[in-house]
Amino acid sequence: MPSVVSVSAVEEAARRIDGLVRRTPLLRLPVDGEAPVYAKCENLQAAGAFKIRGASNFLARLDPDARRHGVITYSSGNHAQAVALAARRVGVPAVVVMPTTAPAVKVEGARALGAEILFEGTTSIERKRRAEAEARTRRLQMVPPFDHPWIIAGQGTVGLEILRDCPAVARVLVPVGGGGLAAGVAAAVKQRRPDVRVVGVEPGGAAKMTASLAAGRPVSLDRVSSLADGLLPVRPGDLTFHHVQRFVDEVVTVDDDPIADAVLWLFRRAKLVVETSGAATLAALPAAAGSAPPGPVGPTVVVLSGGNLGLETLAQLAARRSPEDRRQDRIP
Amino acid sequence: MPSVVSVSAVEEAARRIDGLVRRTPLLRLPVDGEAPVYAKCENLQAAGAFKIRGASNFLARLDPDARRHGVITYSSGNHAQAVALAARRVGVPAVVVMPTTAPAVKVEGARALGAEILFEGTTSIERKRRAEAEARTRRLQMVPPFDHPWIIAGQGTVGLEILRDCPAVARVLVPVGGGGLAAGVAAAVKQRRPDVRVVGVEPGGAAKMTASLAAGRPVSLDRVSSLADGLLPVRPGDLTFHHVQRFVDEVVTVDDDPIADAVLWLFRRAKLVVETSGAATLAALPAAAGSAPPGPVGPTVVVLSGGNLGLETLAQLAARRSPEDRRQDRIP
Repeated sequence: MPSVVSVSAVEEAARRIDGLVRRTPLLRLPVDGEAPVYAKCENLQAAGAFKIRGASNFLARLDPDARRHGVITYSSGNHAQAVALAARRVGVPAVVVMPTTAPAVKVEGARALGAEILFEGTTSIERKRRAEAEARTRRLQMVPPFDHPWIIAGQGTVGLEILRDCPAVARVLVPVGGGGLAAGVAAAVKQRRPDVRVVGVEPGGAAKMTASLAAGRPVSLDRVSSLADGLLPVRPGDLTFHHVQRFVDEVVTVDDDPIADAVLWLFRRAKLVVETSGAATLAALPAAAGSAPPGPVGPTVVVLSGGNLGLETLAQLAARRSPEDRRQDRIP
Repeated sequence: MPSVVSVSAVEEAARRIDGLVRRTPLLRLPVDGEAPVYAKCENLQAAGAFKIRGASNFLARLDPDARRHGVITYSSGNHAQAVALAARRVGVPAVVVMPTTAPAVKVEGARALGAEILFEGTTSIERKRRAEAEARTRRLQMVPPFDHPWIIAGQGTVGLEILRDCPAVARVLVPVGGGGLAAGVAAAVKQRRPDVRVVGVEPGGAAKMTASLAAGRPVSLDRVSSLADGLLPVRPGDLTFHHVQRFVDEVVTVDDDPIADAVLWLFRRAKLVVETSGAATLAALPAAAGSAPPGPVGPTVVVLSGGNLGLETLAQLAARRSPEDRRQDRIP
């Protein structure tokens, strides 16, 4: 069995990236219910998503020799922007392989941060293969989007901040794409506070972690489909799977309509710009209703993982969900 | 001369409304420049704007006899929602007179909070007259939108929070509608910290405070026009004018195009939903560039006063400001 990322590794990552990433606010959401619901606002993070945490930790740990030729990564978008920003800060050239379907807002974000963009296919497997080939040819250091202990430790700093800002927290909902954020948050939270319930959330149309947990090993989905374009890897990482299997209490799935409603609700009621993948946790609150820990009801924290939402996408979500479609009871 | 709202009156208001209003975050904006720029995020306030502070303070100070028949107010929108929410919390019926041009998002917000809505004209003078008539007929207690010491003291709590969260602050930019927020923030900040520069911001098309300061007394504009629908009173209040004259260092004006750009920039770069009136301070940063205090450059705080922005309005602003129109140098 691979070893797990320890709380002290996450604490070291927190010290290493201090000043490079934002300590994002924990905001109470105007949700009715017995217990308060807080949002951990990684949409307000530098480059618009939590990904800068892992990327900054990874870049900080590279030795000068590895940095010389530059770095490369593959990403549906937010990891690309994060690597571009983290690399620019330490003066390292960055190359990013993105899917041909990446939202323009994410492509332009990475380009504006000085990264060289290459487009390849639509799945994480296709762009990983291309990135590995480029890395060999051009002697670039690969910055994996999720399946690496330095990345997991960096993302885990979200968990430490939640525990510090909301010591009474009873439950944390975290989105599952490749599993880096879920792995890091769960490792930090559960090793420090085993009483807190950690729930992973993935799209019903890309339920690779649910399938992998059922199989007892990482499995690849034949195809994935969801509005949540950041949660579409077809397979979890080996290391992230191991962490989720060990530390996450439950993984629930959520469909596209509640995700669209959650994005619109966050805009209208919480005045926050949150992308589809970032709003999946809020959308999953009803699905996770049965997962509250026993005893007095404590606060729930939903991690809003990113805010890179284009105006066009927002308009499409609004058109998709006319007022008659939106079931108020599905939105907290 | 009328007396001014003291710092201790603002401190008492802060204690009175504690638990009824949110302590909104101060977030650093991704603005390039010598000194950091922070946003005081009243868009994340309960009911989506700072107005709940003054309304809660006012309702808390009313005696039971005055509350019995209910309260009434006149407002372009945010004050209406605030009075509706503050009144509902203490079980008092609320009536709101709104302009026929009020954005649907604000009308629906007040209605959803249980207020009775009456529509009257398009100017603050017309709706004030109607509200006063209704108050007499129905024996309702008037909750003035800005020109009252209890309202000014409530809004001033924004200033105290800025000083507490950013002790190094050198300059505060605050929007000017009727002047309640500017009066309260300036009274709190300047009486506590005379070294901090306080700059008022009003639309070029509704520059009633600039005209009044020039005249040395409150004057009424014949007509007003601006995208910033919350900053359209045709005349400042007597008391708010007195506070602004005494405590605000400078009032600058800002036009519609930079306001539209600021709303779009806040959406795209800061991931915040901010209404036109709320974004006026950010839009005014270039206009206020000459107003920095002498000496080392310290942080600027822009008050983002509200977040009640409809999706339709956002789409209209985006259509109005095509990428070619937007001069990047106008946006910080």
